[in-house]
Order: sequence, then structure tokens, then C-alpha cells
Amino acid sequence: MKALWLENNQTSLREIPQPEKTNEALIKIRSAGICSTDLELVKGYYPYTGVLGHEFVGEVVTAPDASWIGQRVVGEINATCGKCEACLNGRPTHCEVRTVLGIVNRDGVFAEYTTLPVENLHRVPDSVPDEMAVFTEPLAAALEIHQQIQIKPTDRVLLVGAGRLGQLVAQTLALTGCDLHALVRHTYQKDLLATRGIKTIAEADIQPRRWDIVVEATGSPVGFDIARKAIRPRGTLVMKSTYAGELTVNFSPLVVDEITIIGSRCGPFAPALGLLERREVDPTVLISAQYKLGECLKAFEHAAQSGVLKVLISM
Amino acid sequence: MKALWLENNQTSLREIPQPEKTNEALIKIRSAGICSTDLELVKGYYPYTGVLGHEFVGEVVTAPDASWIGQRVVGEINATCGKCEACLNGRPTHCEVRTVLGIVNRDGVFAEYTTLPVENLHRVPDSVPDEMAVFTEPLAAALEIHQQIQIKPTDRVLLVGAGRLGQLVAQTLALTGCDLHALVRHTYQKDLLATRGIKTIAEADIQPRRWDIVVEATGSPVGFDIARKAIRPRGTLVMKSTYAGELTVNFSPLVVDEITIIGSRCGPFAPALGLLERREVDPTVLISAQYKLGECLKAFEHAAQSGVLKVLISM
Repeated sequence: MKALWLENNQTSLREIPQPEKTNEALIKIRSAGICSTDLELVKGYYPYTGVLGHEFVGEVVTAPDASWIGQRVVGEINATCGKCEACLNGRPTHCEVRTVLGIVNRDGVFAEYTTLPVENLHRVPDSVPDEMAVFTEPLAAALEIHQQIQIKPTDRVLLVGAGRLGQLVAQTLALTGCDLHALVRHTYQKDLLATRGIKTIAEADIQPRRWDIVVEATGSPVGFDIARKAIRPRGTLVMKSTYAGELTVNFSPLVVDEITIIGSRCGPFAPALGLLERREVDPTVLISAQYKLGECLKAFEHAAQSGVLKVLISM
Repeated sequence: MKALWLENNQTSLREIPQPEKTNEALIKIRSAGICSTDLELVKGYYPYTGVLGHEFVGEVVTAPDASWIGQRVVGEINATCGKCEACLNGRPTHCEVRTVLGIVNRDGVFAEYTTLPVENLHRVPDSVPDEMAVFTEPLAAALEIHQQIQIKPTDRVLLVGAGRLGQLVAQTLALTGCDLHALVRHTYQKDLLATRGIKTIAEADIQPRRWDIVVEATGSPVGFDIARKAIRPRGTLVMKSTYAGELTVNFSPLVVDEITIIGSRCGPFAPALGLLERREVDPTVLISAQYKLGECLKAFEHAAQSGVLKVLISM
């Protein structure tokens, strides 16, 4: 089968054997999305060799449990052992020996087929089209914030950065009724938020030490610095992005102000599908372009350009 | 009156006028404790000019409300406005225009007298002697951890550092029934903990990524690094110390592991007095030496020596 292969920071479109794992579902990919993590992996953020890609919607071809066959599905990306301390304590996304679809020791979804344990699969409701369902994984990641902290309707919430993931974070934060403002870099990001009535704010207008919750979604030290200054004493700073390299931080004011900093990664799929089914969020506005798998190298070039949000690859 | 004055990082024993604030209680100091923050202020950690000291027990001499006169009291160190956003939202210790006893724009307690608003005062139960009551402020700071996060009896908790504040943190953490281990530098710290049945652990024996909660109480980058490595995914790292200078931190693993970092400062006085009254904690084991106010410069020299815990100054 055709697949986008990453090796030594080089991507190539290759012909590789179709995966065979009798204890997992074989899934024919229908559509897959390019995420910032994919672009970071290509840059060498984390050493990975194999098929890239982890956001997808597909159809089950074979499965240990035949009831899955023919189902249109999305899949959680962490394949877990079910036996380690993290798994046994209800933190499967932190499984100590996990493989991660297209990220850690598990071939991903920019390919004709992939495999996943059936435990990872979620049926997609018929009313949710592929171009929505393919956003389930990043939408779940946005919802992880809501799993971790309480966001009150009266909270002043600042979102720093509204790129691929930030736009979905903005849409889910807005559902809480909180007083949300987003700091964006590009006009098109602002325009997208405006279509949903989400306010943006200029950096100069961000009142320092006034925001109950700040979500940092830029992954840049500049974004972190803006977030730090905006958060109020006893406020919560959610780190929704990983950072290339190290941050140098003066922790004493964070201690004096009793700030909480919380890292946030993968989230729950079922509620994300529920939001899509009820059209409470609309990720399709993020689609910048669609490519066929044969053009996936071009798709990656496109996705890496500034100002591009979601690039989809369909099979 | 005699007072320990700090100016341009120089301490001196001075004769200064007795304070006069008709809207505050005048308190005759009975005993006061030297805290690491005092030593840091002398080193120039934060610019401050005035009488040093914020841990005390004293007797009210005059007060706007006469019912306080003659009472033996301890006092909360943050004097607040009651009108700012922080005050009105139940975060008075973060009052935006606060003065802080012996730390920010308010003369402290290494003196014959000090003043505080009566709202800051707490009566000391008769059964709590001065040498216990003088620890109310740092004991309250230890309890702030319990105000901020839930510590379950089944939690594995690592305390990094058991100096002046760390010893009190150890005693209050132990009350939760959690599986507590402390990493200490000095034998005498270990011995003190052993008298209360609190276990210590060698650095080499600290399992990485295994501790539900880690309390960092060293204020050193080395301590922070140990804490970082010990905390489990989705664990909580409590920062109980301020840091001179900046820390350089690789945040990506903190995001991937969804770690929570929380700064912790001043805590609640009433429960601290309750613990002292019921003898659930015993801070008096920390007393390394007692000096008279006239010898307070010598007391500071003593307190700054390695291996010294609490040095008290009595009036």
C-alpha cells in the first residue's frame, strides 16, 4: 500500500506492506488531517521512524470482534497495556509502555490502511460527515482542558494563539459561557473566530494579572511570556502546546502569586463526537485544503506554510 | 524602642520611635522567629527598608476595639484593602495593594512593638505556649498546601527538603495518612523527622515518575530538578519555595505528562492554631536557639549557618 514514511527527518511516499495484526482492527483510511505535531516530527522534535499521521476517520475492514467490520470509525491514538500503574489508575493515555499512532512505535494514518486495537475505536454517527469526524482527535485534545480544570461561566479566559488546535480550543471554551478573548496573529484567525462570535483582543489591550484562566496554544516562548503576565494571582495557566527547546522562567513570582500551571494533551473522544453530532462546534471552517494520498508530500508543504490551518489527505 | 532595621542589605539594631497607628492594634512582641525569607531579604532577594520579621506572638496593648487589649495574639502578615478584586473575590492574601509585615511597606516584628489591623489578629489559646504560637505563621504556610490540593491517604508524596519550613510541611503532610517520604540533606533533619515516624529516602532510591505529589521546599534548582523527575504523569508538583534567579525548564515533557505545578505561599491561621492546641504538630523541636532582642544581629548570624533551623528572638 502507499504510505507517507518518515525516516531521519525525511518524508517520502512509499509502497509498504499492508499492516497485519490479527489482534487489532484493520482500518481503511478515508480521510486524515495534518497536525502541528506531524510537522514537528518532520523537523525532528521527537525521533520517529514509520508512517506519519494520527488524525483520521476510516472504515473497519477486519477486526477480532466482527461487529466492528464495516463501521466508520475514529480512533484514540494511545494504544495501552491495561496492566501498568497508569492504566490501572484510570490514566490510560499515560500508559507507561504505550505506543502512539504515527508518533511512538506505531505506524500512523497517512496510508491506505492502519491498525488499532478495537478498544481504541469509536463509531462515528451517520450524521457526522468525514470532514468533521477527522477532527475528533484534536477536538478531544481541546476538551482535555475541560477534563482537567473547571471553567466557570464568570471566568475571564484568555486564549493565546488560535492556530489549528487553538481554533478548536476557542470553540470549546466558548461553549462554557466564559468571558473569552483570543490573542491571534493573523486576520484570517480573527475572522474565523468572529464567525462564531468569539472576541479577539490586541496584545496591548491584555490587562496584566487579570485573567482567571489563560490557555497557551502557541508553543512559543513569546506566547508563554504573554500568558504569564496575563494570569491573575491564583489563576491557572494551561499549557496546550509543547515547546521546542527550554523555557527560562522566573518561578518566584509564580510561587508568590500561587499560580497553577497545567500541561494538557490527549482528551476524551466520546464527548468530542457528541459535540460534532450536535453541531456545537464546527471544525470544517479550519479546512485550508484537501489532497489525495498520492500528493501527500505537497500536502505537507502546504500545511507548513504560515497562515494555513488544516490540510486534509483523503485516500 | 529597639528594632532590627534593614536598609541597603545592611541590618542594624536601632532606636526608632514606637509605632503609632490609631486604626490598628499596637502589639508588644513576646517572641519572634527568623524565617528563610528574612535571610533572603537581607541578601537582597527583594528590596525592603524597615523593621524585619513577620513570625511572632505578642500581646495587644492598644486597639480600636478594646476587647483585644491584653489578648495574646498572633497575626496574619498581609494587611489588605478589602476593596480590590482579589479581596472581593476571597483572595485577601493576594490583595493588590497589600502591605506585608516585615516584607513589603510595613514594619515587622523584630522590635519591641509592632502594629497590625485587628482583622489580622488571632487569639492564642492559653494552652499554646509562646514557643509554639510563634510558629503559627509558617505552620499556616504549610497548611496552604492542603488548602490548594487534595492529598489522599493513598497518595505517594515526596517532600524535597526539610529545613525550617519543610519540617512543618512534613508534619502536616503526615497528618493526612499519605505515604510520605522526605529527601533531606542533613542527619539532624532526618533525626527530627524520625522522632515523628516520618520516613526519609535517599536520592538514589527515589523512583522516577512514580510520585503522585511532590512538594519542593528547597528553593534550589537542584531540588526542582529532583522534584521534576520524581513526579508521575498527571501528578502535582507543589512549589513551596521561592527561587533566587531563574529556572530553565524543558516544558514539553511537563505538557506530555500533563503535570500540574502550583505555587504555594501564605496559609490559614485558625487551623494552624487548632493543630497547635491539639498538639497534632510540634514545631518546638525546630528551635535551634533563642536570643534576646539586643542580640538580634548575633541571632541572624546564627540563623544563617548551615544546619540551623529556627532561631527565636524574645523581647
